[in-house]
Amino acid sequence: MIESIQLDKSSSKHLYIQLYIQLRGLIEAGKLKEHTKLPPIRKLSKSLGVNNVTIVNAYNLLEEENLVYKKVGSGTFVSAKNLVGDREDVYLDEEVYIDEDTKFVEDRKGVEEGDRVINFATAAPTPDLFPIAPFKRLLNKVLDRDRGYAFGYQKSQGYLPLRQSISEYIKSYNIESKIDEIQIVSGAQQGIDILAKTFLDYGDTVFVERPTYPGAISVFKSRRANIVDIPMGEDGIDIKALEAELAKEKPKFLYLMPNYQNPTGYSYSKEKKERILELAKEHDLLIIEDDCLSDLNYGKNNNSSLKSLDTESRVIYIKSFSKIFMPGLRLAFLIIPERYFNDILLSKYMSDIFTDGLVQRVLDLYFREEIWEEQISKLKQTYQQRYEAMVKSLHKYLPQRVKFTTPAGGLNLWLELPESISGKKLHQKALKKGINIAPGEVFYYSQKQENRVRLSIAAVTIEEIELGIKKLAKLIQTELDEENYRWDNSIMPLV
Amino acid sequence: MIESIQLDKSSSKHLYIQLYIQLRGLIEAGKLKEHTKLPPIRKLSKSLGVNNVTIVNAYNLLEEENLVYKKVGSGTFVSAKNLVGDREDVYLDEEVYIDEDTKFVEDRKGVEEGDRVINFATAAPTPDLFPIAPFKRLLNKVLDRDRGYAFGYQKSQGYLPLRQSISEYIKSYNIESKIDEIQIVSGAQQGIDILAKTFLDYGDTVFVERPTYPGAISVFKSRRANIVDIPMGEDGIDIKALEAELAKEKPKFLYLMPNYQNPTGYSYSKEKKERILELAKEHDLLIIEDDCLSDLNYGKNNNSSLKSLDTESRVIYIKSFSKIFMPGLRLAFLIIPERYFNDILLSKYMSDIFTDGLVQRVLDLYFREEIWEEQISKLKQTYQQRYEAMVKSLHKYLPQRVKFTTPAGGLNLWLELPESISGKKLHQKALKKGINIAPGEVFYYSQKQENRVRLSIAAVTIEEIELGIKKLAKLIQTELDEENYRWDNSIMPLV
Repeated sequence: MIESIQLDKSSSKHLYIQLYIQLRGLIEAGKLKEHTKLPPIRKLSKSLGVNNVTIVNAYNLLEEENLVYKKVGSGTFVSAKNLVGDREDVYLDEEVYIDEDTKFVEDRKGVEEGDRVINFATAAPTPDLFPIAPFKRLLNKVLDRDRGYAFGYQKSQGYLPLRQSISEYIKSYNIESKIDEIQIVSGAQQGIDILAKTFLDYGDTVFVERPTYPGAISVFKSRRANIVDIPMGEDGIDIKALEAELAKEKPKFLYLMPNYQNPTGYSYSKEKKERILELAKEHDLLIIEDDCLSDLNYGKNNNSSLKSLDTESRVIYIKSFSKIFMPGLRLAFLIIPERYFNDILLSKYMSDIFTDGLVQRVLDLYFREEIWEEQISKLKQTYQQRYEAMVKSLHKYLPQRVKFTTPAGGLNLWLELPESISGKKLHQKALKKGINIAPGEVFYYSQKQENRVRLSIAAVTIEEIELGIKKLAKLIQTELDEENYRWDNSIMPLV
Repeated sequence: MIESIQLDKSSSKHLYIQLYIQLRGLIEAGKLKEHTKLPPIRKLSKSLGVNNVTIVNAYNLLEEENLVYKKVGSGTFVSAKNLVGDREDVYLDEEVYIDEDTKFVEDRKGVEEGDRVINFATAAPTPDLFPIAPFKRLLNKVLDRDRGYAFGYQKSQGYLPLRQSISEYIKSYNIESKIDEIQIVSGAQQGIDILAKTFLDYGDTVFVERPTYPGAISVFKSRRANIVDIPMGEDGIDIKALEAELAKEKPKFLYLMPNYQNPTGYSYSKEKKERILELAKEHDLLIIEDDCLSDLNYGKNNNSSLKSLDTESRVIYIKSFSKIFMPGLRLAFLIIPERYFNDILLSKYMSDIFTDGLVQRVLDLYFREEIWEEQISKLKQTYQQRYEAMVKSLHKYLPQRVKFTTPAGGLNLWLELPESISGKKLHQKALKKGINIAPGEVFYYSQKQENRVRLSIAAVTIEEIELGIKKLAKLIQTELDEENYRWDNSIMPLV
């Protein structure tokens, strides 16, 4: 296959780019199979009559795209298909992050040669889900329209027309917001960081759900806050436990994900949403509502946000576009009550002064030209098909003793394994069989439940779902069989 | 002029965009003069036969670009030329930021009608300095080459080929760095924030220069650090004062700007740079070197960085592209010793997970296609001409009692006014005459010097420099004359 490569030295295109494009083409077309070794650098440079650096650069670019991987001392190999474009570390916490062995999402070390990796571990969508053509058209439109202005300093609060567009768009979520209440941020993670900077000081208390998003925990820890985590149930946070904690202490804020929570996928019932707002009134609380998935409802759920029910300006709303637009463009927004404008603006300023103006302008045109709705609706359709395939496979293959609910929305499903099975160990075993899953324990701040697992549908095809769940179920069954065997053996002498 | 506007309802272009473009054209061509009132919304919508919203949207877009400004109750007016594209708040500190009256850079309230604003207050370059054509070409190249990959999740450390390019490029600064040592961040401000997150805990001490960049002070305060500021001299920080502070306490790090410091423009002598590194060795110190202007040397200065002299990995280097590339693209990099890799990566992750991948790819091509050098060199030439004009005018017009040095580099000049003149009051008076300057006191953490002023050349033409300094000098002279008069009056009775 490599023999088909021809570089044109007279072209204005760099040689390494030509080589990169041709190799990428071969990989994408399946002509270079997974785990195929690419030719050694010297050999290829000689046969193509180019410099070593050309080959090195091309291989590096391929590696950057996760199209190939390198093994020290043995060369460069074509990646398993599902690693392509998968770069999310999104559920990592401090310990996990700095421990190489537990960098689950990017983990490839345990994969046995020849296996294909089916990735249920990441909630980051693959690049193929996002149409590039409209983006390119709008980007050029912005450049033609605004020229240098698109590259000047932007206001820390965000590009005004985009804030207008968002204010209009968010009406379809039953949220009425003034343009001034909208603060653009560089992704939801930055939103959390900015709010922590604004509200949390040394020793302040914050309430979170248990389990929750570890990226938020890291930020709260970094502010040296006192974190109180309150159990999540299938219909939302445990109200009694919340009330008990409120009786002890008033937190600076509650960090909640009321719809399709990460990692559980659970949503709050309408009653719980209302009760939370009542409690907020009673105790004069501030709530931070992190909403990145409420768009993805596949059934008849009431997926109204707390913000839409908030008549007293007690909720700060964070909305990310990463899961439903281009994940690589760091863009999200906050809706904030007026009394916090200045403090939050200062925190934004301290964080990165402002968010990239070019991307803000392009997103604005997405709204204004009404391409947005179309893109979300297509994406939702794709996710829904995957979600349904996932639920079907889970019911079909998983042993009875594995529990899960099907919230009919979002990207994640949350499994409760039998007590004896560790999610972390299952992760390791599954990886050897070419299946990546997220062990549940990384989503806990306290009282880690080791027998939980998060499965995401963001980066798997329908065929992979069936195949992957079948294999995963078999692994779990094997674990259970071994447990029974140990049990049998342990009671044997007593007979 | 407005009569010339024609909207094409059959065009695929939105009407408000058509209107925006035509109005912008009239403003840019000078056909709509500064402070001209635009037609009322209803009147224009009627005469053009379009909806009110079309006019509102177009006016809002113009306002966003600072091409027009609004006055409550009286309408929309064409901006003074020099406000166009000027959006920097870069020297603001907490107090200043939240106090509307002292938002100097965007301040327009004091300007008397008809005056033209000459902006010495901002160090942010105007958009016209950055050629858009190569950027557009490279952006499209990236989109064609990488398609969806350009929008996928990026590694928190940054896009690998860009880190390679930077590692190569920085060799010309005599800095040898491994690719792994380079961490991409979303602008220098984020770099400072990330390092503060990594190293500063409640009550930790940090040393800074006096005066210094207020965006750094805000961040250190937000980490509840104990800030010790050490006087800056024309040849760098006061070593004796530094040694005295070191005898008392070891800081977590020193935050320094050794070349063309902000706000003073001063650079450290070679001796002081070496002495700082010796002290770092003696006391086992970590230094954060913030370098955004060392590229802009107009003379024969030794503008070597501390990092290039650092043989013991005691320096973390921050390099921003905002002043020398496109300010609107939030992009900078850190060079970090290996022992901090994980901690800093975690802080980056907490801050915004990763920096926009599209922009990283474009910048990479700037380096690889060697357009970079050309752009910097052109920009430097422009700045040098302005700098020389500035120095000439200062010598020509300023009263003898105003002191300043001419460091022959960077974007800023630092004036020491006679004791009796307040920089803040001068700012207010100057603004009325259409001149914006940055009062020096906002750059102080302690021991504010009220008689200092920062003048920047980033957003003024050569003609404006001569005119602006002449007017400013006259204002200062008037102040001095009044002072003499008061003095004369006050001693009069004694005679």
